Amino acid sequence: MKKYHLHNRPNRELKEETEINEILLNGKFAVISMCRNNEPYIVSLSYGYDLKNKCLYFHCATEGLKLDFIAANKKVCATVIEDKGYIQGECAHEYKTAVFWGEMFIVEDNEEKKHGMNILLEHLEKKEDIVENLMLKSEKVYAKMNILKLNIDEIHAKAGR
Amino acid sequence: MKKYHLHNRPNRELKEETEINEILLNGKFAVISMCRNNEPYIVSLSYGYDLKNKCLYFHCATEGLKLDFIAANKKVCATVIEDKGYIQGECAHEYKTAVFWGEMFIVEDNEEKKHGMNILLEHLEKKEDIVENLMLKSEKVYAKMNILKLNIDEIHAKAGR
Repeated sequence: MKKYHLHNRPNRELKEETEINEILLNGKFAVISMCRNNEPYIVSLSYGYDLKNKCLYFHCATEGLKLDFIAANKKVCATVIEDKGYIQGECAHEYKTAVFWGEMFIVEDNEEKKHGMNILLEHLEKKEDIVENLMLKSEKVYAKMNILKLNIDEIHAKAGR
Repeated sequence: MKKYHLHNRPNRELKEETEINEILLNGKFAVISMCRNNEPYIVSLSYGYDLKNKCLYFHCATEGLKLDFIAANKKVCATVIEDKGYIQGECAHEYKTAVFWGEMFIVEDNEEKKHGMNILLEHLEKKEDIVENLMLKSEKVYAKMNILKLNIDEIHAKAGR
């Protein structure tokens, strides 16, 4: 049972799980909406999608306004956009988007940080050896690395033009 | 005096007004963060940037979750992203972004609706005759057309890789 009703035109909604997952698997960054004291904030972050565990991992600095917002309210709403561009002369934009709600956590466990960083690099990098190189280099710095995790509770997707 | 302190690396911040305006003038859609009862929501919308009045205009349906959110809390935070893509092998993404706070209104006045629609079409369409054609066709439907306006109160921008 879904909590959010988006009033989308029914013919635009993507219902197949594989179609929805494809948007998350292909995207390179997510845009995240946060609230603190009913005030909004928005950030764009590179991510890795952990398909098995239905969560996204992010790497970020150890301080910043987004961390203040997460500390105040871990509930976020995020989107990944497959932007196919504005269609000249038709007053229309071709796109696919996924919009999802969930909770954002700072990963504390070193093993999960490593897993998250691996998901992130495998998601973003095309070549396996580069992933291995970057993982090796970063091995020493896991303790001071900041990894965020967004557990997806509900997801909607649509395609439009 | 700016209200928000984003802790960005100082060398990434874009301070020149022309550089910041360029991001808004070139973008085709904005991603908007909203809050209702401290719960977040996010939407992506095509926009037109009214440089003179420092506001964005959007065209949208007459009902939907975003309108419910705006009715509950007109304060929004939005971003326009110039996505230059992930840089393979460097664990980095090249981009420019503007993040701005402001209030979102439903435009009630028919003359302002027309102005907003004109800003929107001139922003999105390359050919002047197409703008005129679309304007002519839409002339009859202004009364039932829904135009939103986002007045920018504060804006930050950065470039990174």
